[in-house]
Amino acid sequence: MTGWVVVAGLGPGNDALVTPEVTAILAEATDIVGYIPYVARVAQRPGLTLHASDNRVEIDRSRHALEMAAEGKRVVVVSSGDPGVFAMAAAVFEAVEAGPAHWRSLDIRVLPGITAMLAAAARAGAPLGHDFCAINLSDNLKPWALIERRLRLAAEADFAMAFYNPRSKSRPEGFERTLDILRDACGDSRPVIFARAVSTPDEAIRVVPLPDATADMADMRTMVIVGSSQTRIIERDGPPIVYTPRSVPV
Amino acid sequence: MTGWVVVAGLGPGNDALVTPEVTAILAEATDIVGYIPYVARVAQRPGLTLHASDNRVEIDRSRHALEMAAEGKRVVVVSSGDPGVFAMAAAVFEAVEAGPAHWRSLDIRVLPGITAMLAAAARAGAPLGHDFCAINLSDNLKPWALIERRLRLAAEADFAMAFYNPRSKSRPEGFERTLDILRDACGDSRPVIFARAVSTPDEAIRVVPLPDATADMADMRTMVIVGSSQTRIIERDGPPIVYTPRSVPV
Repeated sequence: MTGWVVVAGLGPGNDALVTPEVTAILAEATDIVGYIPYVARVAQRPGLTLHASDNRVEIDRSRHALEMAAEGKRVVVVSSGDPGVFAMAAAVFEAVEAGPAHWRSLDIRVLPGITAMLAAAARAGAPLGHDFCAINLSDNLKPWALIERRLRLAAEADFAMAFYNPRSKSRPEGFERTLDILRDACGDSRPVIFARAVSTPDEAIRVVPLPDATADMADMRTMVIVGSSQTRIIERDGPPIVYTPRSVPV
Repeated sequence: MTGWVVVAGLGPGNDALVTPEVTAILAEATDIVGYIPYVARVAQRPGLTLHASDNRVEIDRSRHALEMAAEGKRVVVVSSGDPGVFAMAAAVFEAVEAGPAHWRSLDIRVLPGITAMLAAAARAGAPLGHDFCAINLSDNLKPWALIERRLRLAAEADFAMAFYNPRSKSRPEGFERTLDILRDACGDSRPVIFARAVSTPDEAIRVVPLPDATADMADMRTMVIVGSSQTRIIERDGPPIVYTPRSVPV
């Protein structure tokens, strides 16, 4: 049996957002590796072994997947959203680069998924309809000074911005500082979208002007999107539509 | 019959990348609206009318969709990739905002899809594994000076960059200028990924160092991704793996 590793994106939570490509590869796997809540989304069946692990062990998990593939197993590393956006694909390749040479000749593929910012944007309208950036606000793996510099340059570039991991229990002050920087750099006109647990039964969408945004509007299940200076709000009965037009006047 | 408009993303080309949510809504539609090659991806069936239109008539097409929904039709506006990223969702909301007040009370939804940069990134490895930006290089709808400013600020922020619409017959010089700006702003170390027609039979992936990148490596079916200063290349037999690690050293 020839082993392989596929890093697959399960999308934001609802099975209707899992691509048929990912569903098909899950059916071929002998082993599933991933963070506990994502592995829990894969149905048990004879011949399939589930290896669920805790958060923050991404490199151990990646090595385990590569070792099993080298032994001939067909391993799917499951990720929420898209595996290439602040998720498991980079961790697997870090493990490959640091690992034994023979891991480089393994069959390793990445299958894309619906990443949280696309699902959140779709619910709000089309806030990412023009140029935008995506920033991981967690400072576990990078210095806060770099996050701050990117926020200021992104504001100067007038990008719409999508923020992953805005807030955790261990560092609640980071997102507060983010909002302060944005208020300083962008002025008052931009809308902020808080999109919690999109596509799940816990989904909640809230749109507020930047001056009214507070850190407690986000938790670890929230995706935050901030409009550009061109972003528009269409008021109507029910939630407003937030969108960024395709054109910028000369 | 209560009409609605759904703006749905068909992904980059392969039907295995169309979400079940989108497949289900296509089965409920009475009318499909979109650019000719995207409408051609929807199977004909009794009770379904296909309205294919040419490029660059996005607002007319959006108005047509909204008018039909107001008459009670179930209309799906099809987009390639994700409808919210340089695609039809923003055009539909522009039409809503400029249109009659009663369009605001229509049931309008956006269903996300796999956008080209995620499919391209997955094929190359994980070049968007850390903070990144997405820029539409077409200057049809915005001044070139704004594109240039965004490129320079994105380089200064050390984002990986994904470029949509890098090159067209009508303005072949734009992408050449983009490469010149990047060489000036980023130095020589960054890899450039040219990902053509990802997930289709015409797929071709090419990775070159920034100094060797030339404008003729891209056409209108090519997605271009430029790494950050941290982006790594793993050489091996076959195409190299390009990925951006999750961490930035302090």
